[in-house]
Amino acid sequence: MSEEMCERILLAHGGGGILMKELVGRIVAKLGGAGGPLQDSATLPIEGGRISFTTDSFVVSPLFFPGGDIGRLAVCGTVNDLAMSGARPVWLSLSFIIEEGLTFEAFDRILDSIAAAALEAGVVVATGDTKVVERGKADGIFINTSGIGVVPAGVEVSSAFARSGDAVLINGGIGEHGLAIMSRREGIDFGIDIESDTAPLSNITAPLLAGVKTVRSMRDATRGGLASILNEIAEDSKVCIRVVEEAIPVSEAVRKGCELMGYDPLHIANEGKFVAVVAKEDADKALAIMRAHPLGRGAARIGEVAAGPAGVVILKTAFGGERVVDVPYGDMLPRIC
Amino acid sequence: MSEEMCERILLAHGGGGILMKELVGRIVAKLGGAGGPLQDSATLPIEGGRISFTTDSFVVSPLFFPGGDIGRLAVCGTVNDLAMSGARPVWLSLSFIIEEGLTFEAFDRILDSIAAAALEAGVVVATGDTKVVERGKADGIFINTSGIGVVPAGVEVSSAFARSGDAVLINGGIGEHGLAIMSRREGIDFGIDIESDTAPLSNITAPLLAGVKTVRSMRDATRGGLASILNEIAEDSKVCIRVVEEAIPVSEAVRKGCELMGYDPLHIANEGKFVAVVAKEDADKALAIMRAHPLGRGAARIGEVAAGPAGVVILKTAFGGERVVDVPYGDMLPRIC
Repeated sequence: MSEEMCERILLAHGGGGILMKELVGRIVAKLGGAGGPLQDSATLPIEGGRISFTTDSFVVSPLFFPGGDIGRLAVCGTVNDLAMSGARPVWLSLSFIIEEGLTFEAFDRILDSIAAAALEAGVVVATGDTKVVERGKADGIFINTSGIGVVPAGVEVSSAFARSGDAVLINGGIGEHGLAIMSRREGIDFGIDIESDTAPLSNITAPLLAGVKTVRSMRDATRGGLASILNEIAEDSKVCIRVVEEAIPVSEAVRKGCELMGYDPLHIANEGKFVAVVAKEDADKALAIMRAHPLGRGAARIGEVAAGPAGVVILKTAFGGERVVDVPYGDMLPRIC
Repeated sequence: MSEEMCERILLAHGGGGILMKELVGRIVAKLGGAGGPLQDSATLPIEGGRISFTTDSFVVSPLFFPGGDIGRLAVCGTVNDLAMSGARPVWLSLSFIIEEGLTFEAFDRILDSIAAAALEAGVVVATGDTKVVERGKADGIFINTSGIGVVPAGVEVSSAFARSGDAVLINGGIGEHGLAIMSRREGIDFGIDIESDTAPLSNITAPLLAGVKTVRSMRDATRGGLASILNEIAEDSKVCIRVVEEAIPVSEAVRKGCELMGYDPLHIANEGKFVAVVAKEDADKALAIMRAHPLGRGAARIGEVAAGPAGVVILKTAFGGERVVDVPYGDMLPRIC
């Protein structure tokens, strides 16, 4: 086998033979630090109660972008889905679909990133799978992560639980992830660097849930952006959400990038931003807890829940007017996660 | 939008907007019969004890083949991983990576097949995810299923638990899945129809585990075939496994197909066949339980566990000789699952 071939993943690495064993061995070696061995299936001890179960496939393009890569994204995306249900993320599964020809160098970088993110989030990669498809039948690598979390007793969070009078909070500035991807993909120079905000939100939701008993709803603003999740909460809770444009944190760089590209920051994906709806009387306490955490330094109160019109999100614009915040029809930015 | 476009999945269906909501609505409608609603994450009640957690991505080509399709395969593959750990499969997650342009007709057929297989296996699809990538960046559809099962108290099954003297059983004829895929892919006519054996093995492992307390190891013979899993058990348990060629069930059609293609049936993938290692004194009882089940009508005792040489699988050939059963180096048959 030529040296060049040895540096790349081959179709035969997915075939269930000796080469696959070598590939899996490589994965296990890299992820050893992040937790247990990577088995076909894992038997795990559990206490009675409630678990949260979620899945996400990641197809982001490019694989490496300012502030992250597909590996970090795959861990954080699933960890965040668990966190939003009020759970403490515990176990992840990890499944790779690799395009023949991916370099081992790229694969190793992704594995290192997964290991680091899992450590940061405090989750164990418990089980895994690897498939290889022919050149041209995938796009470098796709990663699925599924996750299991434990929901602490007493925690009851749902997009259906927002009530009229509640406060709407966010943990920081929006739009960074989507623009970071686009800037790299299109080779656009915004003049200012924008880095993805990809981060494991469980690290901040844990102290928030521990300190504030009236957290009704939490949602991370991924595909479809802040606009989509506010609409989801408004619909599921049958309430109206009123937000104030000037209160929504948007960095100068994101504002500039959005103007340049003709995007609405409310529609841009994030991977480390979430909305928390809490009882009005706990809003200040919740904000203080969020701001005390590195992932919540830019936290802000952006609006409130009103009784009606149910299912509608209304934005008070900087000019004093009002407009309905709509859900985008299709994809603003394809393959941002 | 043209009629032709309406019949196909678009990139915009993966964008987190209204179109994605419609696509997810379609999935939920189809899978409603198989269990609960398909949420971003599911909160599930659980009793204390042990769970089994597993993941598999399915990239089979073609998507539809004699005896099954990627949907049935995705459910059964993950159900079988859980079953092999001794668990009762309970929940599945379902994540689609769809190539832009897949017809809704094909997608609906796959969803129907998933619903039917989930019902057959008694599992609930609890949570899901959908991504769409550009034409030429995937191959029709890839499906990841992850699964959670409950391991009954007292069940202790592992590929490391085989002991010298144990009997080695299989639930039926090998090689059908791999050859069914190849026959369709290459357009080869074996003269006889070969159908994939894809099936949810939990339906037969449950009565086996309930009736026989000395089940040490169970493994389903997927990628790498019977050869790979026998080697895994031999290695993990540090024992020698001796099998008898004439005792291994292989249908005439498979034998003929393998001769034609130059394959060793021991290396061909199955999706509904498993090996059970049980204590010698329970071998007949185990065989009787297996044969009483539709998935075990062709069950057979194919060999025994010996003390050494450890980690080696030896086949007594039909001609009375002996040979070491090796693990294939790479892929005999790429993308059979």
